[in-house]
Amino acid sequence: MQDGLSTNLQAQVLISALPYIQKYTGKVVVVKYGGNAMINPELKRAVMSDIVLLSLIGVRVVLVHGGGPEITETLKALGKESRFIGGLRYTDKDTANVVQMVLSGKTNKDLVSLIGQCGGKALGFCGIDGGMIKCRKLDNGADLGFVGEIVDIDPQPLANAIYNKYIPVIATVGTDENGQVYNINADTAAAEIATALGAENLITLTDIRGLMRDVNDDTSMIPSVRLSEVDGLIRKGVISGGMIPKVLGFVKALENGVKKAVMIDGRIEHSILIEMFSDEGIGTLFTK
Amino acid sequence: MQDGLSTNLQAQVLISALPYIQKYTGKVVVVKYGGNAMINPELKRAVMSDIVLLSLIGVRVVLVHGGGPEITETLKALGKESRFIGGLRYTDKDTANVVQMVLSGKTNKDLVSLIGQCGGKALGFCGIDGGMIKCRKLDNGADLGFVGEIVDIDPQPLANAIYNKYIPVIATVGTDENGQVYNINADTAAAEIATALGAENLITLTDIRGLMRDVNDDTSMIPSVRLSEVDGLIRKGVISGGMIPKVLGFVKALENGVKKAVMIDGRIEHSILIEMFSDEGIGTLFTK
Amino acid sequence: MQDGLSTNLQAQVLISALPYIQKYTGKVVVVKYGGNAMINPELKRAVMSDIVLLSLIGVRVVLVHGGGPEITETLKALGKESRFIGGLRYTDKDTANVVQMVLSGKTNKDLVSLIGQCGGKALGFCGIDGGMIKCRKLDNGADLGFVGEIVDIDPQPLANAIYNKYIPVIATVGTDENGQVYNINADTAAAEIATALGAENLITLTDIRGLMRDVNDDTSMIPSVRLSEVDGLIRKGVISGGMIPKVLGFVKALENGVKKAVMIDGRIEHSILIEMFSDEGIGTLFTK
Amino acid sequence: MQDGLSTNLQAQVLISALPYIQKYTGKVVVVKYGGNAMINPELKRAVMSDIVLLSLIGVRVVLVHGGGPEITETLKALGKESRFIGGLRYTDKDTANVVQMVLSGKTNKDLVSLIGQCGGKALGFCGIDGGMIKCRKLDNGADLGFVGEIVDIDPQPLANAIYNKYIPVIATVGTDENGQVYNINADTAAAEIATALGAENLITLTDIRGLMRDVNDDTSMIPSVRLSEVDGLIRKGVISGGMIPKVLGFVKALENGVKKAVMIDGRIEHSILIEMFSDEGIGTLFTK
Amino acid sequence: MQDGLSTNLQAQVLISALPYIQKYTGKVVVVKYGGNAMINPELKRAVMSDIVLLSLIGVRVVLVHGGGPEITETLKALGKESRFIGGLRYTDKDTANVVQMVLSGKTNKDLVSLIGQCGGKALGFCGIDGGMIKCRKLDNGADLGFVGEIVDIDPQPLANAIYNKYIPVIATVGTDENGQVYNINADTAAAEIATALGAENLITLTDIRGLMRDVNDDTSMIPSVRLSEVDGLIRKGVISGGMIPKVLGFVKALENGVKKAVMIDGRIEHSILIEMFSDEGIGTLFTK
Amino acid sequence: MQDGLSTNLQAQVLISALPYIQKYTGKVVVVKYGGNAMINPELKRAVMSDIVLLSLIGVRVVLVHGGGPEITETLKALGKESRFIGGLRYTDKDTANVVQMVLSGKTNKDLVSLIGQCGGKALGFCGIDGGMIKCRKLDNGADLGFVGEIVDIDPQPLANAIYNKYIPVIATVGTDENGQVYNINADTAAAEIATALGAENLITLTDIRGLMRDVNDDTSMIPSVRLSEVDGLIRKGVISGGMIPKVLGFVKALENGVKKAVMIDGRIEHSILIEMFSDEGIGTLFTK
Repeated sequence: MQDGLSTNLQAQVLISALPYIQKYTGKVVVVKYGGNAMINPELKRAVMSDIVLLSLIGVRVVLVHGGGPEITETLKALGKESRFIGGLRYTDKDTANVVQMVLSGKTNKDLVSLIGQCGGKALGFCGIDGGMIKCRKLDNGADLGFVGEIVDIDPQPLANAIYNKYIPVIATVGTDENGQVYNINADTAAAEIATALGAENLITLTDIRGLMRDVNDDTSMIPSVRLSEVDGLIRKGVISGGMIPKVLGFVKALENGVKKAVMIDGRIEHSILIEMFSDEGIGTLFTK
Repeated sequence: MQDGLSTNLQAQVLISALPYIQKYTGKVVVVKYGGNAMINPELKRAVMSDIVLLSLIGVRVVLVHGGGPEITETLKALGKESRFIGGLRYTDKDTANVVQMVLSGKTNKDLVSLIGQCGGKALGFCGIDGGMIKCRKLDNGADLGFVGEIVDIDPQPLANAIYNKYIPVIATVGTDENGQVYNINADTAAAEIATALGAENLITLTDIRGLMRDVNDDTSMIPSVRLSEVDGLIRKGVISGGMIPKVLGFVKALENGVKKAVMIDGRIEHSILIEMFSDEGIGTLFTK
Repeated sequence: MQDGLSTNLQAQVLISALPYIQKYTGKVVVVKYGGNAMINPELKRAVMSDIVLLSLIGVRVVLVHGGGPEITETLKALGKESRFIGGLRYTDKDTANVVQMVLSGKTNKDLVSLIGQCGGKALGFCGIDGGMIKCRKLDNGADLGFVGEIVDIDPQPLANAIYNKYIPVIATVGTDENGQVYNINADTAAAEIATALGAENLITLTDIRGLMRDVNDDTSMIPSVRLSEVDGLIRKGVISGGMIPKVLGFVKALENGVKKAVMIDGRIEHSILIEMFSDEGIGTLFTK
Repeated sequence: MQDGLSTNLQAQVLISALPYIQKYTGKVVVVKYGGNAMINPELKRAVMSDIVLLSLIGVRVVLVHGGGPEITETLKALGKESRFIGGLRYTDKDTANVVQMVLSGKTNKDLVSLIGQCGGKALGFCGIDGGMIKCRKLDNGADLGFVGEIVDIDPQPLANAIYNKYIPVIATVGTDENGQVYNINADTAAAEIATALGAENLITLTDIRGLMRDVNDDTSMIPSVRLSEVDGLIRKGVISGGMIPKVLGFVKALENGVKKAVMIDGRIEHSILIEMFSDEGIGTLFTK
Repeated sequence: MQDGLSTNLQAQVLISALPYIQKYTGKVVVVKYGGNAMINPELKRAVMSDIVLLSLIGVRVVLVHGGGPEITETLKALGKESRFIGGLRYTDKDTANVVQMVLSGKTNKDLVSLIGQCGGKALGFCGIDGGMIKCRKLDNGADLGFVGEIVDIDPQPLANAIYNKYIPVIATVGTDENGQVYNINADTAAAEIATALGAENLITLTDIRGLMRDVNDDTSMIPSVRLSEVDGLIRKGVISGGMIPKVLGFVKALENGVKKAVMIDGRIEHSILIEMFSDEGIGTLFTK
Repeated sequence: MQDGLSTNLQAQVLISALPYIQKYTGKVVVVKYGGNAMINPELKRAVMSDIVLLSLIGVRVVLVHGGGPEITETLKALGKESRFIGGLRYTDKDTANVVQMVLSGKTNKDLVSLIGQCGGKALGFCGIDGGMIKCRKLDNGADLGFVGEIVDIDPQPLANAIYNKYIPVIATVGTDENGQVYNINADTAAAEIATALGAENLITLTDIRGLMRDVNDDTSMIPSVRLSEVDGLIRKGVISGGMIPKVLGFVKALENGVKKAVMIDGRIEHSILIEMFSDEGIGTLFTK
């Protein structure tokens, strides 16, 4: 066990975890993983350890990941410039292929491998597998090329993996009815997957402490938000920019049966465990 | 979580438990519970918490208990004197009935209830249930009355309970073919049950640190014993008295497929967790 | 087969049982067992034989028992006086513990053992097992101490036992949310258990022929009662005293899906079989 | 229940059946049905009642039947003469077709219907169904035409029927690899089916009391025969004629795992029940 | 593969069957088989081959057959004259028995055998088996004797057969509550069975090309009919005579969940495959 | 169906496929896919169609693929030169990562997508998923960098996929105990996977007609080879170069339970169907 603590104290820590284990055992928890926690190797291994621990104590964890930096890097190595429109990557046909290749062949399988090294058993999927994520061209005014919005999710492959005690790890690309591949926002995809699986909890790792009233004031984090407050917070600009799709995903998930959605600071080691194994949690909790 | 420790440190303790969880998940572990750990209410609750924790993280715990003090106390209240021959209780017909009543109606159900309060789900059994423990009069020279030796174990009710995610708690009385009830040594019964269930591990809680070369020298504990060494240790008198049936039970269990048997100090809070969740363990480990 | 009857006649008896077997095969029948039938050893064995027979021909029998005399006797042996208020036992904390011990450790396991000797397979339960019977202090004006009324029944352990072809035998003690044990009226418990299991039939063994218009007139038994008649019979005093909880239990069970409830004379050998295997039955039948 | 007997006595008869029910519950019992018991309508209904009773109390009964008289009658009505060689029906192509038609379309379905009227659920099969009985031309010296000997039995359809709680009723015709239908000796087929299903018991209904030392002396019945005695009994002529195939079927079945084979008098009403529900049985018992 | 075609072309044929296989895999298709396709041995074998093929590629085929000619022939051989009232066979008690015998013993088992020779596995049933088809005397004005109309279908034996990968083959006789056997119109029975099994498709083989506006004009076939058009077509006389029960069966089946009903020309070899494996199909398609 | 053929002829083609369907239904067939058949888009779609057809008619197809050209192309686009030693790609750490990314993210998911478009349901895997392929550095004299040889295969994820009716598609990279990724020869991997799954048949698509006595003489193909002949053929040089690992994989698979291994010409459209659906097959068949 942990060095520097008496074994007795350690045993007491385990025992103090009992009520939280009881709360989540047998429940589906979807973790959206991205940002810094994905770049820093130590944080990465800490997150994967958390996920393996949850899996071993009976939580049915599902990992949904993005992979922006690795995509940008590979595009650059291939001599393709990344182009962004309103903060979103313009995705031409070649880029869509690279996104598929990097996300589902590199980022995804590296995570699967890392979970294996931490003692877990994972299976890597992307939205192409089993026709799992069906999408169409996102229509939000700007032409972003092959950026998709989800039309339908068939969670069967994930449900089978969970049933067979594997941790599903999902790269968020999807296809339309012609087999054309699309890049899909991972926050949105995580929310849709949580909904499709009837998840208890959707946990999103971000690079800030939570939802901040004032991003420059570390003490201004809002600990909890009810759905009815979201519109006001958007109007006031507290929820803005990249926060908007995250929060709208939360809203949809909560309205469709997911019990809790929480935004936590992925830069803090073991933030998932701290969130799930303490009464106060960390970050900002969204509930109905 | 545990007060007075940073949540981060607590998360690290949980993470450090990972390899031990992996080792025992899905395995049957039989805990023989008796002695001081059964009398002191705080120790009692600590042991039950350990068992609930193990159960929640996927270990299939089976609890086998004795109950000497409560039997003696009830016999006394009923005006019956307890008589011991060579350290073993002489059990006349009335006493056998009282043993059955106290062990399976009081001690057993109190433990089941306590597990429930700690958040677990238990079912209480005695060897009469489902004809689970068949025995005959123990033949060891002295006439001890209705003290039985096990002839056959039908583990079906226990296996069903485990399958349905209940923790079986077993009072060690059994019956012969005429329905006569017998008092059975709980150490022996635990070893036979561990064998019948193909347990990974048999953990016996005692009132000493482990097997001691010199009972008066706290530093003389033998950390591990191989089966081939047992005869020598008996000859030298290191294993003697009440230790003999415990160790012979271990020997039989290990020879019949149980992987490890360990004798630990039930007076130490959470000794089960410390044994199972650390590399060094505590107490004396017996292996083939 | 039965001596003194030609085997041919005996075969014809078996054949004549066919339609009744067909009627009950695969159905849950809850037998409430108490009174004289529980004290007289021959009647006791006859009842257990009936239950084993029913079990073997495919009826899913569940046995719920009281145990007043053995409790009184043990309390007396322990030097505790039994105190009754309005016919109900005043149950202080010590008495509650003795009730638990005697009912679930002595009476219950003795019945399990006897079923085993008659060739059946039974498992003994009390309301503590698996948190099966949750109760609170009975509030009926008088302070009876730890006499409970049922708040909730979790029939899972019974359903599992039935599924695995065991006869569940239930001692009617329960616990509140703090683990405090309560004595529960066995008639009420049997009715609640019959309801929770969706029983076809609830059979209560009593010490009189059935519901009598005039308890002193053996010919005044009422053969059948519809729910709508119960209020009138109570008002007229035909149903009174200890009959009231029995009949109110019947009413609740019938209103919640149990098909038939019947009160039969436990002093008649094989009265269960006679009731179930003849068109006229014996005793008083309650239906919706 | 049976008129003219007190219900109490009847209950005692049921109870006295307990040990026999225990012995056979869950076991496969193959009944070979033929001869007088098949012609007399009352006996027929009595046999079917016995079979339904056995089925309801958990015995897995399989009924194998012949049908000589109905075949002969239909052949006659069709203007075809029955021709016998050494006691066996010469079966030309047309006759084989008539045998198939009468046995599996008339006799078989009439029995299925009668079982239904007695409250049971049966499914009619012949050896053609599911390719269940594969055979070839019987080679015993004489040319009997399309009389077959069994090459292989696929008991799957019967096992499925039993699993789904139907009583399989089997007409003993089979086919060769070209689809040609053959008439098969029902005694031999019953023995092979008992073997293929791992039956506990093979019961053959005949028109005599059992195996007789002297067919003219009713008191000369041999109550039991061991396999080792069979050769001697054949040599002495005690087993002769139509008895030989019956007994040779028994021998093969017992040598391949069937526990008991018994020849009983089908002319006695409920002889199956009398055999199975008494210690002494009736008729001649063959054991290994 | 098929001689005279290049293997490549043959492979392409198989590939072109893909979308049709996808459409029907796992679905129940009931085939009503009668008329010429049943008399001509080559057509008979072609139909059975089609059915085996469908079964092997995952379609759950159920075969319902008539058998008029064989019944007539056997009645004649038995010296009984066939008498028809309004085109329907007058069925006296003897005739009902012959119908049962021929349909379920000859026609049915011959089909089962033929399916076996084509490489499939079939089980033969009639409405007597498992009490599958319950009926009463048909009341249509004329007294037709034992001609029945269906009161209830218990599809359990068919569902079990399908589950165990057998092709059920059904002879359409049924019984009333007294066990009296009745002759049942096979078209009606097929429609009821399709309904009871929730079939995707009901295919009826007939001796004409489909529903004809003018039976003398081969080009006047109506390719498809909606339920709303049926009344008009009956009024105009386009649907008349023996077509009426067929079409009324279709109507009832379609109204109760069967997706499609189609009447095809059984005289065309492999007409079932041509219907199911082409977009245009053949014959007349009825849909809701 | 196929244009230009009468529907009747097409139906006959389907019927002629019957015996081959029977032979393979429910069996595992591993297809190793590589070479030209993977580059030419029409051949690619034809192979995927074949696989979907096999899957639909009940064959349990498993697709193992290489991907040399796409790897080379991506390496080139990334400015990395491909280096070959003795015909095998030298794989440094960066190259190993690119191999993983391209094979499991591009080639693999494109095949999964194409199967989806052909109407099948596939799941993409690589040896990292579920720790499926464990390997170590290949030790064959030359230092090839991270080229692995298989140490262990855990077929669980593939077996689960098959059970749930998905077609598993496998990219042949694996990991060692430290999580280092290795490039693995796809022919060898296919043989090991076929062995681990107890496959009936291992089909390898190549760019030649089969095993040729003289590669320049199209008529010199050897139609079948027994294991005992392999050594001789290697000594004579008939099996040489890249053929050697293919054939050694066959040998190992056949020795460990795979029934047949066959090398066919992937340049011929639908060569898989032609091989499986004709008696003569195409290419070279290896059997024990």
